Amino acid sequence: MPYDESAAALLAEHIALDDAARALLFTEARSANTFTDEPVSSEQLRAIWELAKFPPTAANTNPLRVLYVSSPDARVRLVDLMNEGNKAKTAAAPAVAILAADLDFHEHIPQLFPSRPELRDVFAADDEARAAHARVNATLQIGYYLLAVRAAGLAAGPMGGFDAAGVDAEFFPGGRWRSLLVVNIGKPGENPWFDRLPRLDYEQAVRFI
Amino acid sequence: MPYDESAAALLAEHIALDDAARALLFTEARSANTFTDEPVSSEQLRAIWELAKFPPTAANTNPLRVLYVSSPDARVRLVDLMNEGNKAKTAAAPAVAILAADLDFHEHIPQLFPSRPELRDVFAADDEARAAHARVNATLQIGYYLLAVRAAGLAAGPMGGFDAAGVDAEFFPGGRWRSLLVVNIGKPGENPWFDRLPRLDYEQAVRFI
Repeated sequence: MPYDESAAALLAEHIALDDAARALLFTEARSANTFTDEPVSSEQLRAIWELAKFPPTAANTNPLRVLYVSSPDARVRLVDLMNEGNKAKTAAAPAVAILAADLDFHEHIPQLFPSRPELRDVFAADDEARAAHARVNATLQIGYYLLAVRAAGLAAGPMGGFDAAGVDAEFFPGGRWRSLLVVNIGKPGENPWFDRLPRLDYEQAVRFI
Repeated sequence: MPYDESAAALLAEHIALDDAARALLFTEARSANTFTDEPVSSEQLRAIWELAKFPPTAANTNPLRVLYVSSPDARVRLVDLMNEGNKAKTAAAPAVAILAADLDFHEHIPQLFPSRPELRDVFAADDEARAAHARVNATLQIGYYLLAVRAAGLAAGPMGGFDAAGVDAEFFPGGRWRSLLVVNIGKPGENPWFDRLPRLDYEQAVRFI
């Protein structure tokens, strides 16, 4: 998709975030399929979380959880559960995260929302509503997390193509965390991406009433 | 939540995004409950979309849709469907968006993923899987959208507290778009927020295997 000049002028005039930051997070950033060998440090992973944790969730429930699959043995077990087209890149990525929803997020409500601790019991009483809340708000946080990876100067490679039931059985046997997405993380490698695919026109996605 | 110095040092060292941009999008940004009278222009709304459209969705399906409720009559109809605590601020906000999932996003696949137009028919054959895909990926895009609002130098006030079935009946009678979130947008007004609520500690949310 050519990044057209009228859109660039619109962003320069109406977006407070400067051009370099817009490029890093939005306009030039891409999902990567290959990575260099450069490791991702534990400090980088912690810094990503220290950004991603801030934007809002409903009732401040923060249900997103992250499992970094770093030991060689665990990585092999994960790769076995990835779809065929995702195996090689997941085996080779410097860092790999399983992003998950904590279905028992409500246990943290007295800490996260100290003025309304009774919300813990409201959620405890309805497993179905709690699971839906966990998945929706963890997915919202995945949006923040992917942009935080980019903010760290790294590329993310998010993948929905894996055996989610198998990943849950293998990595979250208690059933409390449920996998939503697997993300490869690192510096982009050789031929890291195809040309960017089109987006919808403004008029296709946005309406006024 | 006091923004502690060790976290600030970690971000300064390991995050490529500069301090001002980190503050604008993550560390200092807040959801707003009150707004000034300053209007949000149609150019600002278009610029927000021109950022929010870029980050990834599964199979590039882009299912998020936005309905800006700008006419006085439509605003009254929306306010009637908001929970009590959200009515006054939704009536007063300079701009209000209903964020929705397009359950028939697959009709755009030949445009959005021209090398795999057959995906349209795969999604067409399974209404349940298509609805789930629409909701998950539109929710992911809401994460991008909220950060794009902040990138425009504006505050967002996202609200899940509304009669979703009522909003869908009133604003999306065809059943194709389904409301996910209502967002007030503008410059923060008087006493726009309470103190920030805590977040989970890194060790509570992130693990390694």
